[in-house]
Amino acid sequence: TTDNFFEKTLAVREIAEIPGMLEFDLPVHGDNRGWFKENFQKEKMVPLGFPESFFAEGKLQNNVSFSRKNVLRGLHAEPWDKYISVADNGRVLGAWVDLREGASFGHVYQTVIDASKGIFVPRGVANGFQVLSDFVSYSYLVNDYWALELKPKYAFVNYADPALGIDWEDVVNAEVSAADEGHPLLEDVTAFTREMV
Amino acid sequence: TTDNFFEKTLAVREIAEIPGMLEFDLPVHGDNRGWFKENFQKEKMVPLGFPESFFAEGKLQNNVSFSRKNVLRGLHAEPWDKYISVADNGRVLGAWVDLREGASFGHVYQTVIDASKGIFVPRGVANGFQVLSDFVSYSYLVNDYWALELKPKYAFVNYADPALGIDWEDVVNAEVSAADEGHPLLEDVTAFTREMV
Ligand SMILES: Cc1cn([C@H]2C[C@H](O)[C@@H](COP(=O)(O)OP(=O)(O)O[C@H]3O[C@@H](C)[C@H](O)[C@@H](O)[C@H]3O)O2)c(=O)[nH]c1=O
Ligand SMILES: Cc1cn([C@H]2C[C@H](O)[C@@H](COP(=O)(O)OP(=O)(O)O[C@H]3O[C@@H](C)[C@H](O)[C@@H](O)[C@H]3O)O2)c(=O)[nH]c1=O
Repeated sequence: TTDNFFEKTLAVREIAEIPGMLEFDLPVHGDNRGWFKENFQKEKMVPLGFPESFFAEGKLQNNVSFSRKNVLRGLHAEPWDKYISVADNGRVLGAWVDLREGASFGHVYQTVIDASKGIFVPRGVANGFQVLSDFVSYSYLVNDYWALELKPKYAFVNYADPALGIDWEDVVNAEVSAADEGHPLLEDVTAFTREMV
Repeated sequence: TTDNFFEKTLAVREIAEIPGMLEFDLPVHGDNRGWFKENFQKEKMVPLGFPESFFAEGKLQNNVSFSRKNVLRGLHAEPWDKYISVADNGRVLGAWVDLREGASFGHVYQTVIDASKGIFVPRGVANGFQVLSDFVSYSYLVNDYWALELKPKYAFVNYADPALGIDWEDVVNAEVSAADEGHPLLEDVTAFTREMV
């Protein structure tokens, strides 16, 4: 766990670089057993700015990935919104790249997150992370359904593209998937159009 | 991880002891990075029997607790449904006690769960677990909002009540909260009435 991990006040911050992206501080309550957090609480977080539209179509999926240190997953943009967070004592460097057509195309945001943060990522923004702790459990909510056949319709950008300026650690030796190694450089990415998102 | 952890087929089983309770097998996909699972996927799981009514009121909360080995949390019944699961490589002994008035009052179900299981617990059924691994991240979805002021309206049963017959390990030395130590024996519990749930 990091400094200032416990008992933050629930709060939200807009990410200026990427319109629509939100960073929440989540209260984590520690005691003799470990800790507890309300990772997502609709009634408290919608008034703070979590988009009610996330729920408009009544679709819901919760994904969990578990990864070793130095694993790097991403950067993936799909036609759904994501609310991502860390579900254990681990830490990741999170990175996001706006792949929507328009003035913010190519904008990057990066920050280290632990369980005391929750990040809302609008559809069309590529999401990725590198594991800084020995292990990490990474959990997220999405509002539409992944399918292998639809992968050609998703947008990807290569994590190793130096044009992104992401502060990965020892990126050459990061543990990645074969698919992630093959994604295009930012300059070769086809932007998400309004019709796609 | 346990035997038979990876690549189960998504499947569901009704728990005969506790009407409405469901146990899902979840596919966990392993690779060089760790693993990935769809922990909850509405479009696939509702057709298998996950109650559509879970979403009827449009409320949603996702809780995460992180606990050390031998921590025991429970047994708590509230007026909302829960979909519970393990979000890392840990393992817990899960235990559930039906506290709804009627023929199944006092019925118990217990099983060891890891990340390849998901359990639907209907409102009025008390939920609890003991941590068998060094640590565990325990994640769940609920469809109504907790409040400290409402705690007197929730129902609890004492984890240590021998009448429950739960196979806790070394229960005397389990790490618990002060609140959980003080809950009533099953014979002293006021059942959840239809009006409460
Ligand atoms: C994303 C996903 C994958 N899978 C399967 C396909 C593979 O067998 C296995 C791993 O899939 P991968 O695409 O390699 O996982 P991944 O961890 O690289 O993918 C994820 O990376 C995050 C950074 C993104 O935000 C997510 O949107 C997602 O793309 O899980 C599902 O069954 N459902 C899903 O929703
Ligand atoms: C349950 C809950 C607790 N809290 C706070 C209150 C305390 O400061 C801290 C820990 O609360 P406790 O009730 O001691 O946590 P706990 O882990 O003992 O409680 C949980 O146990 C599970 C077995 C049940 O299924 C859950 O429904 C819940 O009761 O978290 C919330 O802010 N929101 C919540 O929804």
